Amino acid sequence: MGRSLVFSPNIPLKFSRRLNSVSPLNHQLCQSFLPRTRQVSLGGYLKFPSFNASQGGRTTLRVTAVVSSDTSYPKVGAASTGPIPPGQLIEVVETAAKTGAQVIMDAVNKPRNIFYKGLTDLVTETDKMSEAAILDVVRKNFPDHLILGEEGGIIGDSSSDYLWCIDPLDGTTNFTHGYPSFAVSVGVLFRGNPAAAAVVEFVGGPMCWNTRTFSATAGGGAFCNGQKIQASKTDLVEQSLLVTGFGYEHDDPWATNMELFKEFTDISRGVRRLGAAAVDMCHVALGVVEAYWEYRLKPWDMAAGVLIVEEAGGAVSCMDGGKFCVFDRSVLVSNGALHGKLLDRIAPATEKLKAKGIDFSLWYKPDNYQTDL
Amino acid sequence: MGRSLVFSPNIPLKFSRRLNSVSPLNHQLCQSFLPRTRQVSLGGYLKFPSFNASQGGRTTLRVTAVVSSDTSYPKVGAASTGPIPPGQLIEVVETAAKTGAQVIMDAVNKPRNIFYKGLTDLVTETDKMSEAAILDVVRKNFPDHLILGEEGGIIGDSSSDYLWCIDPLDGTTNFTHGYPSFAVSVGVLFRGNPAAAAVVEFVGGPMCWNTRTFSATAGGGAFCNGQKIQASKTDLVEQSLLVTGFGYEHDDPWATNMELFKEFTDISRGVRRLGAAAVDMCHVALGVVEAYWEYRLKPWDMAAGVLIVEEAGGAVSCMDGGKFCVFDRSVLVSNGALHGKLLDRIAPATEKLKAKGIDFSLWYKPDNYQTDL
Repeated sequence: MGRSLVFSPNIPLKFSRRLNSVSPLNHQLCQSFLPRTRQVSLGGYLKFPSFNASQGGRTTLRVTAVVSSDTSYPKVGAASTGPIPPGQLIEVVETAAKTGAQVIMDAVNKPRNIFYKGLTDLVTETDKMSEAAILDVVRKNFPDHLILGEEGGIIGDSSSDYLWCIDPLDGTTNFTHGYPSFAVSVGVLFRGNPAAAAVVEFVGGPMCWNTRTFSATAGGGAFCNGQKIQASKTDLVEQSLLVTGFGYEHDDPWATNMELFKEFTDISRGVRRLGAAAVDMCHVALGVVEAYWEYRLKPWDMAAGVLIVEEAGGAVSCMDGGKFCVFDRSVLVSNGALHGKLLDRIAPATEKLKAKGIDFSLWYKPDNYQTDL
Repeated sequence: MGRSLVFSPNIPLKFSRRLNSVSPLNHQLCQSFLPRTRQVSLGGYLKFPSFNASQGGRTTLRVTAVVSSDTSYPKVGAASTGPIPPGQLIEVVETAAKTGAQVIMDAVNKPRNIFYKGLTDLVTETDKMSEAAILDVVRKNFPDHLILGEEGGIIGDSSSDYLWCIDPLDGTTNFTHGYPSFAVSVGVLFRGNPAAAAVVEFVGGPMCWNTRTFSATAGGGAFCNGQKIQASKTDLVEQSLLVTGFGYEHDDPWATNMELFKEFTDISRGVRRLGAAAVDMCHVALGVVEAYWEYRLKPWDMAAGVLIVEEAGGAVSCMDGGKFCVFDRSVLVSNGALHGKLLDRIAPATEKLKAKGIDFSLWYKPDNYQTDL
């Protein structure tokens, strides 16, 4: 079922001044009047430019409700895993991620040498050692594949259809403090779209470190520790738990997201701030939070997480609501059911940034790498 | 060592317009000029009403630096555990907390019946069952003690010197979503001051739930899973990881804390938002974050956590910098070394709320309960 437009007879409605999007109203109407309505399927992201509910008072409506579902957001996963069978590809992806995770687990309780990348961006020796261990696995198995690592940049053959996006330690600040969660994230693209993904999350903390492994292949579903997982079904913002992130650059998108953090903290059950993008996305896939968004991400932050969310039944888009690819600079992942309602607030805020000249073009795509994007 | 006032010769200084507190400057001066300075010990929270660093430009200073340490913040723990020996008291406290935790662990993977307390305040059957189990342990061991439970309110003999403050499920929103962390928190006061405390934290999440137990007795140190723990030594805001919370009431203190969240996200390594007060405080005691603050807390949220932090070498105060007791409405806990620097921003924001008439009087103290406060 796609997103649906619900018609109903002219109904007198009372609006509050606080209402500045149609979504809460839509829900109320769906609940109250569905027996009297008929539905028409629509595709894409729907806007009501002529509808103004911020005036207060009473009025009547004919077009009353949008019933969201995830299927109207373009898929980000590859059509297939390419010539490499999914079982073979995911085995190497998981082995690579777990090999990196072993390096991190060994280091978790040891003193760490810390280096500075930026003001608050810590990179540890562990980060570099984890990437080296992951690269070793990838190159032994697929010596001709292209690789983009957070630490090492781009290496390999750019004529390959496969591009590995590797974050050897996502959430380095948390790692440095011994604060959960952080993760190893390995996503492999086939002609630009995620084909297989694994994220090893470190949970718990001092006295009780543990890991859990998320994985997915294009069209093959998403799993946590081998068990199939599914995003939540919650379709009300006020019953949702959300999570977001704030990058190292304290620029206009950072300030905009502060406003979004405040707005959504006000209207949802809460917005968590945990500090590792891949982990936050896996939590959406696991159904423990309904959605996650962040500006200023890089391919290695997102390549694995977006596929895991999509394969768990969730939806993925850019923060302006547009079709997402892993070379983009922002992402909104959700359980699907909430996606439109979140975009009601997130998309206009992002459009304002674009109007101010903030760059939302593709961040980086390796030269000569051929894609189906 | 108390907080110290550092004198140095007249030194020309360059201020940036952004500087609106003396602390970052103080640190810089300490680093640069300590060899030329002499120190004079001072007690209490120090203010520079006549010092204005927000004008920019160059000037000279004589009083240049405040070196923070935790010992100048009044202790919140009881002088002793009273007539009950610490070993006996903590055994019952830990047993009570673990008994409640067992109820929660049994429920973690089961479907849950959810009730609403407020707009986003979820209380589950588990919450009530956990409290009943805890109360059972307390009343079997100390039938004459007074008990304040989040669910059941006040019960027992108000002439007792002991008051048990029980949160049977701290972080119910997280629990409902299967999102770590949440906890059972049991703190017992002797004549109004925390004498013994235990917090059982649920970590991990679906596929890997686990617990760790924090405990402390007045003067006896703080422990996690039986191992002695200590708050961090970090004394620079820019090298600190912080955590805060936002209550269910979206009032003036809520808005003020949004501003503090933004300010500290800007100048620290990050502000986490995890959703369970007792857990956040234990994380300060464990040294994985440097500080935690929140408005609008209740005794059952704080009674255990504040003692655990203090016994781990940290500091505890109200958010205006004043002496804290568990009947207060706000708390700042830190590793001690950072306390003054955090208060440089948090205290003025809190004073503004007080000036607006926001009530910061004691939230509740049981009638007739005799204290040493």
